[in-house]
Amino acid sequence: MSRVVKLAVIPGDGIGPEVIAEAEKVLDAVTAESDVRFDKTRFSLGAARFLETGDTLTDEDLAAIAANDAILLGAVGGTPGDPRLKDANIERGLLLKLRFTLDHYVNLRPSKLFTGAHGPLSDPGEIDFVVVREGTEGPYVGNGGAIRVGTPHEVANETSVNTAFGVERVVRYAFELAERRRKKLTLVHKTNVLVHAGAIWKRIVDEVAAEHPDVAVDYLHVDAATIFLVSDPSRFDVIVTDNLFGDILTDLAGAVTGGIGLAASGNINPDGAFPSMFEPVHGSAPDIAGQQKADPTAAILSIALLLDHLGLAAESARVTAAVEADIAARTGARSTAEIGSAITARL
Amino acid sequence: MSRVVKLAVIPGDGIGPEVIAEAEKVLDAVTAESDVRFDKTRFSLGAARFLETGDTLTDEDLAAIAANDAILLGAVGGTPGDPRLKDANIERGLLLKLRFTLDHYVNLRPSKLFTGAHGPLSDPGEIDFVVVREGTEGPYVGNGGAIRVGTPHEVANETSVNTAFGVERVVRYAFELAERRRKKLTLVHKTNVLVHAGAIWKRIVDEVAAEHPDVAVDYLHVDAATIFLVSDPSRFDVIVTDNLFGDILTDLAGAVTGGIGLAASGNINPDGAFPSMFEPVHGSAPDIAGQQKADPTAAILSIALLLDHLGLAAESARVTAAVEADIAARTGARSTAEIGSAITARL
Ligand SMILES: CC(C)[C@H](C(=O)O)[C@@H](O)C(=O)O
Ligand SMILES: CC(C)[C@H](C(=O)O)[C@@H](O)C(=O)O
Repeated sequence: MSRVVKLAVIPGDGIGPEVIAEAEKVLDAVTAESDVRFDKTRFSLGAARFLETGDTLTDEDLAAIAANDAILLGAVGGTPGDPRLKDANIERGLLLKLRFTLDHYVNLRPSKLFTGAHGPLSDPGEIDFVVVREGTEGPYVGNGGAIRVGTPHEVANETSVNTAFGVERVVRYAFELAERRRKKLTLVHKTNVLVHAGAIWKRIVDEVAAEHPDVAVDYLHVDAATIFLVSDPSRFDVIVTDNLFGDILTDLAGAVTGGIGLAASGNINPDGAFPSMFEPVHGSAPDIAGQQKADPTAAILSIALLLDHLGLAAESARVTAAVEADIAARTGARSTAEIGSAITARL
Repeated sequence: MSRVVKLAVIPGDGIGPEVIAEAEKVLDAVTAESDVRFDKTRFSLGAARFLETGDTLTDEDLAAIAANDAILLGAVGGTPGDPRLKDANIERGLLLKLRFTLDHYVNLRPSKLFTGAHGPLSDPGEIDFVVVREGTEGPYVGNGGAIRVGTPHEVANETSVNTAFGVERVVRYAFELAERRRKKLTLVHKTNVLVHAGAIWKRIVDEVAAEHPDVAVDYLHVDAATIFLVSDPSRFDVIVTDNLFGDILTDLAGAVTGGIGLAASGNINPDGAFPSMFEPVHGSAPDIAGQQKADPTAAILSIALLLDHLGLAAESARVTAAVEADIAARTGARSTAEIGSAITARL
């Protein structure tokens, strides 16, 4: 009897559809002979849909997406400066709304420098770490506001909200991950300035650390962490950090490991109450959309994360191995579809 | 008749005193034959003073420091994890208190890759930009708090405060600086997430841009900006950004331009209502303190910024030229004092 996984597919805008097409190619191929079948439902969401209907993500969309076992997302966002999108915040209204409503409290972002990948560092060493970024709190909660908007007396505030509940669950996840890896965990924050938010993170990491005596725990201010990401990235194993610092560090980490075209991510609800969502870290890149110039590798590695999350460890490993082999053999430029087909062929 | 400049000198903790000694060597030498005399007052502030007296920065300290024309600061902060400093936040109580009380709304941080300096990038290109970091607002205001501290129901908040008054004055400074440089200004923020804080920055940059039609204006999300800092740093001329993003970007920029041992900064009150303060971007590095291992170049380049701020452009240029010549000729390891003396000799 075959297992059926209901998968919501949101190709999105810009290069999203192109890279998702390749990711699906790989997913179909790697599960072709297994007893798992993916029952896919496609959702047309993003800037294009907004321009057509005025909707970003309706309650019906949300309910339909939430009825799946997992979500695969390409990228969302229209052309920067498009006047018709001036008041549409597709990122907040779609991407962040999904992460928050589906309680994706672990934003998992592995960073690995694959053999053959070339980053900007002259002497990178071995890079292989995972950023566990909190996904439902911090400065991302949208608890901001402004008065006297547009006047010389405007005051605009943003509040970062951090709860023991929210911090503890993601910190526990990070420690458990560190146990399965090289047993090193680095908390990144800015405790000397953000004293209250910093203190709750520090306290909870210290508390959970006591339950994991074999995990070596380290702390870095976010500014210092960026220095180490370029001067000594191999020092990192698991980084746990808040939503905003995680956003910044993972783009930098993506660049350092050969470019954001290779960086995959999972927005995970470890409790299984809601479907988890897998997406490349990169954006919709409207400037190169439809030209078959985008690298689908990040989307394909997101498939590996998806498979792993679903307990399909062998299939996940096959995808990662195919990507590694492809990267190691890269020479000239290839189209999006060529890269996808080459990786599929190596499965 | 000679001009007298009253200078407050705060060597601070760790490597602070060592690097400040070299900075003073250079300052004394470069002004020896000029008609400017520096009348220095030394302040023993920092972790050591706190441990001795329990005071971080008293009202008397503040008044005495404010009575000067300018301030030279080394670095402050004790050994991380020192239990006696557990509840002392020297950074907030001293460094940030000075910046806020003396209304240092421009935190000026030049980033230049000097010939002979080696950063971690294999192909850095020409790097020469200035970060104009806002210094008195944003998430640094200390408007945070927590309830149910230490319990599973703790909620810890931090509020970023951004005012039209505060944003406009630093944005104007940045545009004027861009006019004197390569006429390119990049606003860095995270407008798609921090919508209210982002909107006030965006609006004011757009407004001031209209008065500077010859300055090319660009916008980057902070996460994307970190990518460009390692993949294409030569694209930047003037970056204007908030207090926290500026903190993060300038440490990364320091690393990219050959290490934080070369990065100087000015905490400037352009109105002249309060003395401006010059300091290396690096911290007190207690682990190497007293060993003559620290590079005093950042402190010496802070002297160049100080001289420039005081209108002593020729002296400032001599210091920069001496540093450039020294860096270009660097070979093996030298002590802190050897580097200071070598730069002094090149004046
Ligand atoms: C598009 C944006 C809202 C998003 C974020 O800030 O989380 C993106 O940068 C990311 O990292 O996934
Ligand atoms: C020490 C700390 C408070 C300070 C800051 O965050 O501003 C430092 O990192 C800096 O950049 O000068």
